[in-house]
Amino acid sequence: MSLIVQKFGGSSVANAERLRNVASIVGETYSAGNNVIVVVSAQGDTTDDLLEKAAEINPHASKREMDVLLSTGEQQSMALLAMALEADGLPVVSLTGWQAGVQTDANYGMARIRRIDKERIESELGKKNIVIVAGFQGVNRYDDVTTLGRGGSDTSAVALAAALHADLCQIFTDVEGVFTADPRLVPNAHKLDEITYDEMLELASLGAQVLHNRSVEMAKKYSVKMEVLSSLERKPGTILKEVIKMEKMLIRGVARDNNVARISLVEVPDMPGVAFKLFGRLAANNINVDIILQSIGRDGTKDISFTVSRSQKQAAMDIVAEIKEALHARDIICDDNVSKVSIVGAGMESNPGVAAKMFEALGEANINIQMISTSEIKISVLIALEEADHAVQVIHDAFDL
Amino acid sequence: MSLIVQKFGGSSVANAERLRNVASIVGETYSAGNNVIVVVSAQGDTTDDLLEKAAEINPHASKREMDVLLSTGEQQSMALLAMALEADGLPVVSLTGWQAGVQTDANYGMARIRRIDKERIESELGKKNIVIVAGFQGVNRYDDVTTLGRGGSDTSAVALAAALHADLCQIFTDVEGVFTADPRLVPNAHKLDEITYDEMLELASLGAQVLHNRSVEMAKKYSVKMEVLSSLERKPGTILKEVIKMEKMLIRGVARDNNVARISLVEVPDMPGVAFKLFGRLAANNINVDIILQSIGRDGTKDISFTVSRSQKQAAMDIVAEIKEALHARDIICDDNVSKVSIVGAGMESNPGVAAKMFEALGEANINIQMISTSEIKISVLIALEEADHAVQVIHDAFDL
Repeated sequence: MSLIVQKFGGSSVANAERLRNVASIVGETYSAGNNVIVVVSAQGDTTDDLLEKAAEINPHASKREMDVLLSTGEQQSMALLAMALEADGLPVVSLTGWQAGVQTDANYGMARIRRIDKERIESELGKKNIVIVAGFQGVNRYDDVTTLGRGGSDTSAVALAAALHADLCQIFTDVEGVFTADPRLVPNAHKLDEITYDEMLELASLGAQVLHNRSVEMAKKYSVKMEVLSSLERKPGTILKEVIKMEKMLIRGVARDNNVARISLVEVPDMPGVAFKLFGRLAANNINVDIILQSIGRDGTKDISFTVSRSQKQAAMDIVAEIKEALHARDIICDDNVSKVSIVGAGMESNPGVAAKMFEALGEANINIQMISTSEIKISVLIALEEADHAVQVIHDAFDL
Repeated sequence: MSLIVQKFGGSSVANAERLRNVASIVGETYSAGNNVIVVVSAQGDTTDDLLEKAAEINPHASKREMDVLLSTGEQQSMALLAMALEADGLPVVSLTGWQAGVQTDANYGMARIRRIDKERIESELGKKNIVIVAGFQGVNRYDDVTTLGRGGSDTSAVALAAALHADLCQIFTDVEGVFTADPRLVPNAHKLDEITYDEMLELASLGAQVLHNRSVEMAKKYSVKMEVLSSLERKPGTILKEVIKMEKMLIRGVARDNNVARISLVEVPDMPGVAFKLFGRLAANNINVDIILQSIGRDGTKDISFTVSRSQKQAAMDIVAEIKEALHARDIICDDNVSKVSIVGAGMESNPGVAAKMFEALGEANINIQMISTSEIKISVLIALEEADHAVQVIHDAFDL
């Protein structure tokens, strides 16, 4: 007998029909002899509706009260799913974050899970109950409700799987699994059977939008075996694990991220401390810098370019403008007509030909590379926005994914 | 400095504008130097919407899961009200039933409050916070959420007022207070400044629909001073207390209850045990019988009539039909074209003229009385439904209310 954690997102529980579908997936897993913990998100647009209600009353509401409000969304969907399972004659109990012992810090709106007090869940599993837990929420040591922020329900699922030593943590979504590229961009993209945590982390941060990084990081840390699969089609998804058989596949997938802007400081004096001044100030203002590129000094000056997400572009520009004088830069250029295209694969670190093959494919397609960034399992290039979709396709073809 | 509990019903918190109004009432009370505990119901139709959602998924959902679902309504409105108070710059914290220490029995859907663990509320009041508590809900000793059933939020408010020795428990509604009759029926009905718990209990059970009996019973038991008043108009309402100065007013008000049906067993043998057989069976089936009238035996038979609420009419008729043979009754008559009209007043018990005056008024209006029931502070008559509104008016006039 195995313990399986199954997580269903907002669209999977959006209405009565979808809830019945989820109940049948859960029921099958339970009836096959497994212990089952189910983690649910709020239904469809519930969270947005609640945010709207709150904004109408107080656009600057405290995060504590916002968490009290938002946590009701998951509480509703867990009760409704429990009712759907009861309708199928199955023994079930739903638990809120505090009932399930999900202890977090007091960082309202983006709390971190500190530990899971397992007594209640173990007791319910011992009674052969299917246990439904509200995702995205917990309770801090003051007995106040907290929410976990973006990707919170995935994180809840993995944390429960880790604490209770589950054999598998299944994340059900509206896609079949992790693909070699976005199937809407690359028609011949295909689903991966397996992927490593590290590859998934790179893909997620590159805009693959299947799993949130927090949950994958936690799965990696506690060696939780995860599966990403569709709640609508009954077939195997993509398994995430620490190490997978390499075979001959070098790269795992191609991803595109259009939510990026490039900022360049032109002709900055080539002196020590410049980079620190710039990036220290950006970090102090909570601006996440992604790719950094610094040209080799020439005639006593150098150029520094970096990328940020578009939502942080203005904030970054304000800071750069503020310290332009102190840095003695000649000019500042900002361009958000760019896209970041990346390939990810644990196999590439031992194979120097991968980068060359990617650049060759782009060169043949006459696509100019503005910036390059590499890690052990990833190569990213910054290119013009309008060439991004084409770039994903030619890279996908070049690697014969 | 006083401690005041203020309870606002669903219509008082139905939207952003109403919530702001409630916030201003609460803010005024707090700014006048009082400690304030606010009890809220779910917004407007929230509870009905949730019931509908549940029914779509499982019309026979367990009461436990129903309580998990329904309790989110109050949790949402308490957070939204907290946000409205924050917008006014006031210190506030919202607490669910479990956070507020509202301990109940495990009778899901109609739980009874066992005790209030006061630590959290006292600690928040000590910090000078306005404390908002979700009405209608509590937690049982298994840490499961319970709801209190009809009138639950009023009961929550009185229980908190009793436990924390509040100086006043204000129940805000959409009427100005308790009236001598329904103002929609009797244009010259007027608001009472004071009423005793007992009178209120009689009026509530007679369909005055201002306060739920459970809350009044609890207020009487713990001597909680209550006030019923309007959340829309800033003027004094009706104060409920144990004893009030009698002055010359004999009766407190006139009420009408159309939710009633009369069932009569005709020509039952006049033997001992008949009443027990009938009412024992009805009680065993949880059917609440209100007025009972038994004719004097004649020719060895008697007639037994009783009233039940219309919703229980069919269930009552089924039982009566079942035992008709055993009772040897000649016939069964059921009539729901009836109404119960009552006068209530602590002054009447020492004044035998009250009943006569009521009957005289009805007689002069040519209204036939089918049944009569009296208590120390109440006289009820059963009359034809179509004559009920007129009866309320003539009685109101006769007593010059």
